[in-house]
Amino acid sequence: MNQTDVIIVGAGPCGLFQAFQLGLQGLQCHLIEALPYAGGQCAELYPDKPIYDIPGIPVVMAGELSDQLCEQLRPFQPVFHFSQTVEAIEPAEGRFTVQTSTGTTLSAESVVIATGAGAFTPVKLRVEGIERFENKHLFYAEAESTHTSLKQVAVTGDTPSAIDTAISIAASSEKTTLIHRKRRLQMEPHQQAQIAELEQADKLQLVNGKILAAAGETALESLTVQLKSREELTLTVDTLLARLGSSPKSNAFDQWNLSTERNLLGVDAADFSTNLDGTYAIGDINTYPGKRKLILCGFHEATLTAFAIAKKRKPSEPIHTLYTTTSTVLQQRLGVA
Amino acid sequence: MNQTDVIIVGAGPCGLFQAFQLGLQGLQCHLIEALPYAGGQCAELYPDKPIYDIPGIPVVMAGELSDQLCEQLRPFQPVFHFSQTVEAIEPAEGRFTVQTSTGTTLSAESVVIATGAGAFTPVKLRVEGIERFENKHLFYAEAESTHTSLKQVAVTGDTPSAIDTAISIAASSEKTTLIHRKRRLQMEPHQQAQIAELEQADKLQLVNGKILAAAGETALESLTVQLKSREELTLTVDTLLARLGSSPKSNAFDQWNLSTERNLLGVDAADFSTNLDGTYAIGDINTYPGKRKLILCGFHEATLTAFAIAKKRKPSEPIHTLYTTTSTVLQQRLGVA
Repeated sequence: MNQTDVIIVGAGPCGLFQAFQLGLQGLQCHLIEALPYAGGQCAELYPDKPIYDIPGIPVVMAGELSDQLCEQLRPFQPVFHFSQTVEAIEPAEGRFTVQTSTGTTLSAESVVIATGAGAFTPVKLRVEGIERFENKHLFYAEAESTHTSLKQVAVTGDTPSAIDTAISIAASSEKTTLIHRKRRLQMEPHQQAQIAELEQADKLQLVNGKILAAAGETALESLTVQLKSREELTLTVDTLLARLGSSPKSNAFDQWNLSTERNLLGVDAADFSTNLDGTYAIGDINTYPGKRKLILCGFHEATLTAFAIAKKRKPSEPIHTLYTTTSTVLQQRLGVA
Repeated sequence: MNQTDVIIVGAGPCGLFQAFQLGLQGLQCHLIEALPYAGGQCAELYPDKPIYDIPGIPVVMAGELSDQLCEQLRPFQPVFHFSQTVEAIEPAEGRFTVQTSTGTTLSAESVVIATGAGAFTPVKLRVEGIERFENKHLFYAEAESTHTSLKQVAVTGDTPSAIDTAISIAASSEKTTLIHRKRRLQMEPHQQAQIAELEQADKLQLVNGKILAAAGETALESLTVQLKSREELTLTVDTLLARLGSSPKSNAFDQWNLSTERNLLGVDAADFSTNLDGTYAIGDINTYPGKRKLILCGFHEATLTAFAIAKKRKPSEPIHTLYTTTSTVLQQRLGVA
């Protein structure tokens, strides 16, 4: 079991800055993130969109902000656990044990919940009975696929991930079909060239339509696709990879011993502590008088939380406000002394 | 009398971001600042020192942060009143009238106090009885000097401002003496060249020492300077310009109808309102449970204050949290729609 000082649930902008502020306090942390990378909504939903209200940065792309927060955090080398969600948080002897969906077990003195709108999970296909093939012949994982040497594969989706998956799978499989719903797929010139080459080699075909049904008793055998032209096409397929994007799954705190108000965690604005001693909540998931769901407010919340966690560790010592500009201790921690 | 929506007292980083957040809310503001420029401590005390804890900026020089905040604020064109301090804040018919030390009178619905450690005021000379010459033959103002065609002038100080003042005064006066206490003055190559030229022309002399006494009944006649070599020198002088830097003068709120706790303003952390309805306090001058004197916390305080001021204007309307990434209204205000 991994032992650390603090577990942060969620590696969006607030979770990242939380790890930075804990680093300044000399505390180690692990971050658990549903997505296969850091940045949360900024990285997943709108990486190429500008933000104008981050203080001191007149304009920044959301993805760039997320990169900058990772860069700022680098001196503290926190441990990231990607592509997994929290299943349970159990208090035991003044510590917490956290179990994730992939079987990781962590133990820490404090837990900070920074899950925003919720863990991003893959959007599921809406086809009757298709769940019977899940994790056997139908795969949703957004991370780089580990499937190799497949025979008859269908990839479905209009996302950049769908296009990349189709290209990489087609190169190593017998025959791949990319089923897309939008008439025109948005792609980069290099993707267009790769697709044209794979089509010419008869490894890949593109089908513009919608999956209506999946056939097969225990194994997936075929898909019925309604084409844009309204005709129906039956595709012989043994594996289906769905790449439909992801959406936040609302937070389920019932099993976490945390009480909620309208699915938000009520906190004390002095230290962002929840009703469960030793756990804190920051960012879009918390609520307190005056709360505004803004990234810059989450940065402040992460900062006071870090001071509260440092204080809880050493209740008899004053936790002074040190400045990165003048404090040798902080500069040593940052590696710039 | 200038009418505006909000008066911000102090144009340090928090005051600047306050003006930005008010701009996003569609509100106009005026800023009153003791220094002749924006940026507060960042610009005055440590412009060339690095800050490592501004979220999303791994490292920034304090002066650069101040410049970036001004740049971010530019779309809203607030009015700055530099080189003046607040003398009185008077509530009248749901508004406030603010008087400054230079006679500016402003009227606004709300006032935000963002004075940090206090208004920066020039450091005074410690020479017995010298105050009798103040504002007649002895001048402290840090702003660009308006003195021209003087005769026998002494400039004293080791600051960049002392050097610049000596150079500009020497060019237009009969004879100028720069009295500096440090053995070596830190200066730029172009300043060294100008000083060498003025010395050669017998317009400027440099004296390394300390003023011990000033002579003269009503007018300043001469200064006694103790040289580093311990010898005493008498300089015939009719004007003395002291450029000793500035230091924050602790805030005097007694005349402002505001109650203080250990010279800080107690505020409600939900909206950063003080005891006086319609006035708010942000940054290092305020206090509330959990308060930490950090720039990034002041940014959050400025943001919730802007929402509170917008709400006070239109109590019956909900003030929605809009996002600069998606809101056309905010983008129009920012001039990026």
